[in-house]
Amino acid sequence: MRWKSRVHRFNAQSPCDLSEMERAIGQGQLDAARIIAVLGKTEGNGCVNDFTRGYATQTVNASLATHAAAAGRAEQRAVVVMSGGTEGCLSPHWLVFEKLPDGDGAVRGDARDKGPRLAMAQATTRALLPEELGRAKHIQLVRDAVHEAMQDAGITCAADVHYVQVKCPLLTRQRIADALARGATTATDDAYESMAYSRGASALGVAAALHEVEMTGLEELGAAVCSNYGLYSERASASAGVELMHNEILVLGNSATWGGNLRIAHRVMADPIDLGAVQSVLGDLGFDATRQLAPPASARLVALLAKAEPSRSGSIRGARHTMLDDSDIAATRHARALVGGVLAAVAGDTRLFVSGGAEHQGPDGGGPVAAIAEVSGSSREAA
Amino acid sequence: MRWKSRVHRFNAQSPCDLSEMERAIGQGQLDAARIIAVLGKTEGNGCVNDFTRGYATQTVNASLATHAAAAGRAEQRAVVVMSGGTEGCLSPHWLVFEKLPDGDGAVRGDARDKGPRLAMAQATTRALLPEELGRAKHIQLVRDAVHEAMQDAGITCAADVHYVQVKCPLLTRQRIADALARGATTATDDAYESMAYSRGASALGVAAALHEVEMTGLEELGAAVCSNYGLYSERASASAGVELMHNEILVLGNSATWGGNLRIAHRVMADPIDLGAVQSVLGDLGFDATRQLAPPASARLVALLAKAEPSRSGSIRGARHTMLDDSDIAATRHARALVGGVLAAVAGDTRLFVSGGAEHQGPDGGGPVAAIAEVSGSSREAA
Amino acid sequence: MRWKSRVHRFNAQSPCDLSEMERAIGQGQLDAARIIAVLGKTEGNGCVNDFTRGYATQTVNASLATHAAAAGRAEQRAVVVMSGGTEGCLSPHWLVFEKLPDGDGAVRGDARDKGPRLAMAQATTRALLPEELGRAKHIQLVRDAVHEAMQDAGITCAADVHYVQVKCPLLTRQRIADALARGATTATDDAYESMAYSRGASALGVAAALHEVEMTGLEELGAAVCSNYGLYSERASASAGVELMHNEILVLGNSATWGGNLRIAHRVMADPIDLGAVQSVLGDLGFDATRQLAPPASARLVALLAKAEPSRSGSIRGARHTMLDDSDIAATRHARALVGGVLAAVAGDTRLFVSGGAEHQGPDGGGPVAAIAEVSGSSREAA
Amino acid sequence: MRWKSRVHRFNAQSPCDLSEMERAIGQGQLDAARIIAVLGKTEGNGCVNDFTRGYATQTVNASLATHAAAAGRAEQRAVVVMSGGTEGCLSPHWLVFEKLPDGDGAVRGDARDKGPRLAMAQATTRALLPEELGRAKHIQLVRDAVHEAMQDAGITCAADVHYVQVKCPLLTRQRIADALARGATTATDDAYESMAYSRGASALGVAAALHEVEMTGLEELGAAVCSNYGLYSERASASAGVELMHNEILVLGNSATWGGNLRIAHRVMADPIDLGAVQSVLGDLGFDATRQLAPPASARLVALLAKAEPSRSGSIRGARHTMLDDSDIAATRHARALVGGVLAAVAGDTRLFVSGGAEHQGPDGGGPVAAIAEVSGSSREAA
Repeated sequence: MRWKSRVHRFNAQSPCDLSEMERAIGQGQLDAARIIAVLGKTEGNGCVNDFTRGYATQTVNASLATHAAAAGRAEQRAVVVMSGGTEGCLSPHWLVFEKLPDGDGAVRGDARDKGPRLAMAQATTRALLPEELGRAKHIQLVRDAVHEAMQDAGITCAADVHYVQVKCPLLTRQRIADALARGATTATDDAYESMAYSRGASALGVAAALHEVEMTGLEELGAAVCSNYGLYSERASASAGVELMHNEILVLGNSATWGGNLRIAHRVMADPIDLGAVQSVLGDLGFDATRQLAPPASARLVALLAKAEPSRSGSIRGARHTMLDDSDIAATRHARALVGGVLAAVAGDTRLFVSGGAEHQGPDGGGPVAAIAEVSGSSREAA
Repeated sequence: MRWKSRVHRFNAQSPCDLSEMERAIGQGQLDAARIIAVLGKTEGNGCVNDFTRGYATQTVNASLATHAAAAGRAEQRAVVVMSGGTEGCLSPHWLVFEKLPDGDGAVRGDARDKGPRLAMAQATTRALLPEELGRAKHIQLVRDAVHEAMQDAGITCAADVHYVQVKCPLLTRQRIADALARGATTATDDAYESMAYSRGASALGVAAALHEVEMTGLEELGAAVCSNYGLYSERASASAGVELMHNEILVLGNSATWGGNLRIAHRVMADPIDLGAVQSVLGDLGFDATRQLAPPASARLVALLAKAEPSRSGSIRGARHTMLDDSDIAATRHARALVGGVLAAVAGDTRLFVSGGAEHQGPDGGGPVAAIAEVSGSSREAA
Repeated sequence: MRWKSRVHRFNAQSPCDLSEMERAIGQGQLDAARIIAVLGKTEGNGCVNDFTRGYATQTVNASLATHAAAAGRAEQRAVVVMSGGTEGCLSPHWLVFEKLPDGDGAVRGDARDKGPRLAMAQATTRALLPEELGRAKHIQLVRDAVHEAMQDAGITCAADVHYVQVKCPLLTRQRIADALARGATTATDDAYESMAYSRGASALGVAAALHEVEMTGLEELGAAVCSNYGLYSERASASAGVELMHNEILVLGNSATWGGNLRIAHRVMADPIDLGAVQSVLGDLGFDATRQLAPPASARLVALLAKAEPSRSGSIRGARHTMLDDSDIAATRHARALVGGVLAAVAGDTRLFVSGGAEHQGPDGGGPVAAIAEVSGSSREAA
Repeated sequence: MRWKSRVHRFNAQSPCDLSEMERAIGQGQLDAARIIAVLGKTEGNGCVNDFTRGYATQTVNASLATHAAAAGRAEQRAVVVMSGGTEGCLSPHWLVFEKLPDGDGAVRGDARDKGPRLAMAQATTRALLPEELGRAKHIQLVRDAVHEAMQDAGITCAADVHYVQVKCPLLTRQRIADALARGATTATDDAYESMAYSRGASALGVAAALHEVEMTGLEELGAAVCSNYGLYSERASASAGVELMHNEILVLGNSATWGGNLRIAHRVMADPIDLGAVQSVLGDLGFDATRQLAPPASARLVALLAKAEPSRSGSIRGARHTMLDDSDIAATRHARALVGGVLAAVAGDTRLFVSGGAEHQGPDGGGPVAAIAEVSGSSREAA
């Protein structure tokens, strides 16, 4: 069977506002049963006490359950990842990924661009034990799940993967206590720090799957988590949440066997003001990014995703930044506002999926940037 | 006598760190007696309880006094304006404006670019009465002071003025009470709000001086303060401080009668992600801004100044922003981080003078952007 | 029929944690069908972008609906009021008010204290038009609803009412635009400010109902909203929310016709450090509050509720406070942390319902404080 | 020679406002040459980027230098310790400690209370090497300096010491790099964390000096820093600052050999709502603290000092607090607001010296509380 991808971007008036998605479903533009992932930018602080993520997740899950019940079908498994923090220009929105049969092969034939198309799949690891989180076993399980999703998506070459979203667990006091009761110790005994370990191990799992790090052994990679930041993935984006102990993975890449009219590309930003990387990723998708995208072109860009993080060095191009020393605003909030400005400058759109906490996701202070766009020459209606 | 301008940009490790300036003075690269203005970006919150401004001002004034005393001369009058808030990538720094005789006319002759050069002057209004602040009289006094500074700088045409920095007063409880005791009422009885009124009236004073608003009468302009935001200056940057009741003005423009190797240009950003305006102002100074400035070019750019403010509409290009609804981070802090990202994307440098609170300084949500650069073809050493 | 009240205090591990309530229902200690109100302290910022209130409300409503559905009954109308902000020692918790038939009259007869008991009822106004919010009509509707609830609760004398919780609406851009489209203007065109107007009018409605203000006419009271703070209620606690346009009211008082073993008392704090008022309200309920309540006594205290607000004067007992000048922390967050400290000092418990935004709820800088306790001499089991 | 102490409490309108102190000096109520310590509560965030401390310190030092120069004397060495953070009710103020000859022995004879009087002295350690900070050598140096100050103050018994203020250094990137260049490693490579290590070692140094910890060896104490919180001082208050590498110590106690009319007492709060400890320390000084101190009594209380910190357990008396999970407000800011409320409830005054960061200063979540008051029966004028 031949598949195609559709990506919908809906505005959110609040963490519980799915009205645009419901309208699209009601009008037949989106098939609720075909949703395999929902990513959301929500307007919390993106840190420990950001309850907009849970609120939005509760809302999305309730909606998916309602649609499944109304159709008399079992609820499908969808990856639901909320990223908190819409600092600066960032606009709260949902990205809904739909995988559906490519019935109208004719459409594809019409497109002038015969290149590969966006392919996608999700996978899930087994639940981690608390003592496994942030360590070699965590890396291994994510690595294997990425491979499983690649196979499911029909992507055979690692180079064709351009973005891997991981939703990973974190440690709570109770989970740490459970491990201790069994005589096991955890990677850290601090809940907040465990988020970094979990994101870091997830990212290294992606890096291992995509051959981005020398495979000198899982144990060595495990020891590198939150320690050797020279090891990283250029395509991973990880987000930790309290509501799960397993890992959920969404793999996005390009495949010649998929239909539809979307394609994905990625680059890595060397630092938060790396305009060149943003221009390049857009250039890869056929945009002229020497100027800001104007409406006809910008409408072709359906998603722009990046990780943001202040450099540990305390400086950017040799000049001091104050993000790490600000006790009033969390450093990741500064970084998202900043990277949002750099991306919006070129994209001319503020519905950007910029998320923070980029351990092992790109170099220190930088991070992956990925874009999904309609291929040039396709007509929008054909999608 | 023929003058020339020099603009020095020094890094600040803290609000009391003038070490780079002191070193330049010690090495003869800067004549303390010739300093006419010091602008600083300090790392406070830029809002009511930002004491980094006062701390930095106290430090600068002490330094200027020490140098004057050491040289046995009276202390010169310098405009000292601190702008708080270095969110995102913004790097704390000082901009020191030096006006000195253009002794080596020969240098000018060598430059391939024969165009006008950066000219500058400062002026001061009389002290305002509390009841005058934010009203027609305030506008009038600033307008006249701008004209006085233009004359001093030898700039005859309003179109040659590209940036006017105003440091203006604000109302305290005591000042409001003083007015009331005389039977007078003030524009507002809220100290924080008075900062907006003062900046707004100052900006309209600049607009009046530069013929940017229809001169239908000062009274009408007074009534427009913080009310009719359709009236604004594209070249004013105003900052309110508690330590003065008069207004200090620094006028920067171009003049064919000045020497040196610097030139200034400005544009207005229509909204905070108006990349085109930033590219244009750099284009005006001979840069190719379709890519990020690389080191040889970026070193030519000695200052980039802009105002930042979230749009009152609550949206940017139709997509909602959350800056005005965030009760944890002041809206101006979001806006500075954002505009810093847009500017740094092109400038490739984070020592940017981005300040908040842009009432009547550019359109709603946008603001002026000005750049000072060495003219192409001049040699740096010639300065 | 004879009624009695029960008040349950449950800890909340997060805004979506109702586990203690569910357990109580499961064990028959609480009848879900008898819940008439749920008040919650949630751990958001208590300001504009506090989504923990909506999250908690969504969670409570889903629970009540589930229990009603499971029992095959229509869902009862319950007042659900979430107050954001658990600064300092304040601990997130739920207060669940249960009204049930007083079957075991014998118990009452056993109690040594023959005085009146906690009586309660709720009422709802019709939906307000946007242009009515914060004005005379708003006051009138709340006043009438308080009277209706008093009647329902069998409280005939205003002096027997000790606490009135109001959940009131606020204005959004859309609601303001709707009014404008009809040619009507609203009390304010600022959404945040409309919260203060709504709380203020609600509080004056309570004051009018309880004869706390000279009834010189509703129009005069309407003009006093957010203007003449000399007019206030000593028993109102109002909270504004976006999810409704009507007002929900919970009246708590004492009545000789009710059973159970609870009683309520109130006092007004003259300023945020008015220890005497807290000691007095506890003294009214038979506690010795010259020392902190020790466990046997503190267990008798089932709820302690207060409003917190920084004084507009900028000082407390003549010494300056900085709550209103802090641009990093909202003033109400400071005030809740402070008042929580004062209350906890005496109560020896941190599950305190301290809420902010006290317009016309007590004098400037002060506010009502109410306590609910088991009457001395009653046995806990008898409840 | 016989000495006496005077303690002056001055309001601060801003971090640079010493006007009340200057007036007292001008009116002969305070001898600038006799000032041995100035403590200040300043209105910053009390965290990393709190520049109000540096601003206030710069201001105090300039004033002391000016007075010394005007009198033609060398500047005296005074301990200047600024504590940032005036959350909740806390009012910015200065505490000025003056040590002067007790010329009027007659006064002392008149006082009905013949007990000991406030005695005080300061001492300074040598500069630490970066690698010594937070370790055994740091503890030893502080211990010895406390002993030196005790001797200077004529306090022979450790039990007569009631409060020891330490101003200690912190590590910067440069200092850490200096150590590394010499082949030495530091206790931590994180600047923020080094503040905790420095405060912790300082507190353990005080504990060692006052025999509050079993002296099983300095090395063991060094290993306990920020690790074994069961070891602590009940009388230490430590504050870290970037501007020094040595430690400055102020010892306050009681001595029968001193005159004046002041006395000091201390207790330890077991947790932040330990009202009993506050009532006890006031009781030790002759106050009836079962009610809030009323003006005649409260005027006798010249200083109330306490440390505040959220408990690491995440709960207070078994109920969860959210101070450690709030990414918008630093935990120490919550804690100061809370403890300020508890203290003000009894003191009836908001000029309280509540400081945060209580590592090894009292038990987890609690901290020392000390009070200085005029002895009952002394007349104010006699001081």
